[in-house]
Amino acid sequence: MQQFLEEAKKTSRTIANLSTKTKNKVLNEMADALMAHCDYIVDHNRKDMHEGNMNDLSEALLDRLLLTGERVQGMADAIRQIASQKEPVGRLLDGWVTEDDLNIQKVSVPIGVIGIIYESRPNVTSDTAALCFKSGNVCVLKGGKEAQHSNKAIANVLRQVLAKNKLPEQAISLLPDSTREGVAKLIKQDKYVDLIVPRGGEALIRYVSENSSVPVIKHDKGLCHIYIDRDAAHNKIIDIALNAKVQRPGVCNAMETLLVHQEIAPYILPGLYDAFMEHGTQLKGCKETLKHLDIQCATHEDYDTEYLANILNIKIVQNVDEAIAHISKYGSGHSESILSENYTAVNKFLDAVDAACVYANASTRFTDGGAFGLGAEVGISTNKLHSRGPMGINDLTTFKYKIYGKGQTR
Amino acid sequence: MQQFLEEAKKTSRTIANLSTKTKNKVLNEMADALMAHCDYIVDHNRKDMHEGNMNDLSEALLDRLLLTGERVQGMADAIRQIASQKEPVGRLLDGWVTEDDLNIQKVSVPIGVIGIIYESRPNVTSDTAALCFKSGNVCVLKGGKEAQHSNKAIANVLRQVLAKNKLPEQAISLLPDSTREGVAKLIKQDKYVDLIVPRGGEALIRYVSENSSVPVIKHDKGLCHIYIDRDAAHNKIIDIALNAKVQRPGVCNAMETLLVHQEIAPYILPGLYDAFMEHGTQLKGCKETLKHLDIQCATHEDYDTEYLANILNIKIVQNVDEAIAHISKYGSGHSESILSENYTAVNKFLDAVDAACVYANASTRFTDGGAFGLGAEVGISTNKLHSRGPMGINDLTTFKYKIYGKGQTR
Repeated sequence: MQQFLEEAKKTSRTIANLSTKTKNKVLNEMADALMAHCDYIVDHNRKDMHEGNMNDLSEALLDRLLLTGERVQGMADAIRQIASQKEPVGRLLDGWVTEDDLNIQKVSVPIGVIGIIYESRPNVTSDTAALCFKSGNVCVLKGGKEAQHSNKAIANVLRQVLAKNKLPEQAISLLPDSTREGVAKLIKQDKYVDLIVPRGGEALIRYVSENSSVPVIKHDKGLCHIYIDRDAAHNKIIDIALNAKVQRPGVCNAMETLLVHQEIAPYILPGLYDAFMEHGTQLKGCKETLKHLDIQCATHEDYDTEYLANILNIKIVQNVDEAIAHISKYGSGHSESILSENYTAVNKFLDAVDAACVYANASTRFTDGGAFGLGAEVGISTNKLHSRGPMGINDLTTFKYKIYGKGQTR
Repeated sequence: MQQFLEEAKKTSRTIANLSTKTKNKVLNEMADALMAHCDYIVDHNRKDMHEGNMNDLSEALLDRLLLTGERVQGMADAIRQIASQKEPVGRLLDGWVTEDDLNIQKVSVPIGVIGIIYESRPNVTSDTAALCFKSGNVCVLKGGKEAQHSNKAIANVLRQVLAKNKLPEQAISLLPDSTREGVAKLIKQDKYVDLIVPRGGEALIRYVSENSSVPVIKHDKGLCHIYIDRDAAHNKIIDIALNAKVQRPGVCNAMETLLVHQEIAPYILPGLYDAFMEHGTQLKGCKETLKHLDIQCATHEDYDTEYLANILNIKIVQNVDEAIAHISKYGSGHSESILSENYTAVNKFLDAVDAACVYANASTRFTDGGAFGLGAEVGISTNKLHSRGPMGINDLTTFKYKIYGKGQTR
């Protein structure tokens, strides 16, 4: 393992200095190669699907695992889109001249070796490999055991393109020991690995962040709220609340609790109730809400749960301050939204709520690399440092200071 | 401990939203208060000095520990300088409109609760407290046991100013349990602590980064090089090499190994030797160097050592590529410099060397918040993520996305 990672570190020096032209050529060839080897990939995916069926994986998990011709096409398209993005390396981020007449330039550079630990969906293999390559990094991928045949096939195809271009295949690597012990070793190799990105269940993320000596950027849960203020525009309320809950309940930027200002509650709750009933949403409410609606009572635990399902808590609050207090108690710092026409309430909410993305008059569902206009994404960072929210290609770079002197000493 | 940190987290919400005017008023009052209570602080420092003498602390350590009227004045001046800096919170870092007509603003915000673990020098207590306060963060300080009386006295003075201004005293806290167990607990409280900054010995930093579930920004060692290229300007060589080694050998941005191009070596080594001898530097050299100078032989271990003392390795290399290879093997990614008039060699070195600060024709000693023009600094980050190199006040902020919608749904 150590030798493997030492080699990865060495490779990172080659990859870091590739020209934009070379990187884009290789990426487009990777997209072509995925299509050319589509059958090979789908065949290997069939083995994973077979084993998944034998192991009684859930329908949802099997669907995430499945690759079809169309899905492989989607993977190829994503790589082409990544190739088309603006070069993330070598951006001049800042620059100034010091009192000693040193000319300082702060320039973006690749991070180095990035370990990515993820689950089931095999397209993550090609997406993250392409994102890391475009940003001049070496990736060490550790996918889920359930997708091992698919991931190997995809990595093989991508690595063949590297070899054909006389580039080190190790730029895109699968972790050789993909057991839990392998992960345990990986996250201790801070001499060779510069960043670990865990995506997946809470247990995995907790394990990695508690035990890693390598810096970690977590892609953790989203427990998101929408607060309907007294001065919300009535014509927007139902659309936005419905969209944030039911359009795709299983994702991290979906709403889990709806907070409603006490003065507006009597007028809007019945309409909201009807709309959610129409979409089969299971509603739970605070005691005040229960005076208006005949639904289940919401407990402290309900407010603290990321349902990832078509279930919603409704809570009536006195004002924007109580909404902010509820969010700071239960929110996961992911995405929070206020619906209001009131200038002061909107600004107070956007300033006071501590989350990666704070919205005024929009659905929380927009927290996403694509919707942000970042192109493909590594995921949604729930870290506060380095990267926060949708993690795009620029977040896969760090910086160095280049300092141009004229013989200065101190 | 948990209750204490929960309270710190709550306090961080108050501190995050203070106005610039309030923060600067409080900071200037803190500077005044340090001067007004100078005797009180120096008295408490005397206890630490007494205990330090009893415990046979080294002269160097005792000097770092000592507070005098002049040093307290220096601490007050630093706080005033921090107050005078441009507001780090609320900077608009980026902004754009998406395809869905969402107006996205990326705005700097405080990080939250920052734990700082440091050693001996008591001025770090007031410096970091002021830096954290200016950037809207709550700090939890864990100083060295040898400075405990001084640190308590300084924190008391600063907290009295907070209380006088009706601000929560917990904004500046000393870790209640300052034992090793206290630190062990602190670095596991990722629910309440947002960042840990360890400054100090390698063992401490390793322990913290291996065991923390809170993100860590390390302030680790500096193993710095200067490479004298074939095309170096002769009149600059001795001044810069000397400055980087002898001006203050005990600091992280001092040079440990001098790399010399083989073609220039015969001409410049004798002059360098004389200059270093005059300054009492102990020289060690590679086999090639030993052909020119009568000095000790440098081993692999010597190249791998941060001396923090007036000792220097000299190694002759074939060209800039061998210099870069040596640095990538032994360098700690801190500060590296090339002396050359050759355009291609300079650019190659600045591009290929993976370090926080890469210099052309200047001493590595400029890697410093003050010299960079950042004002006071938390230290020199040897992390690659979030902050790299001199860590100024802006590095004590993160960001949030404020997203202004018009009722958009997905």
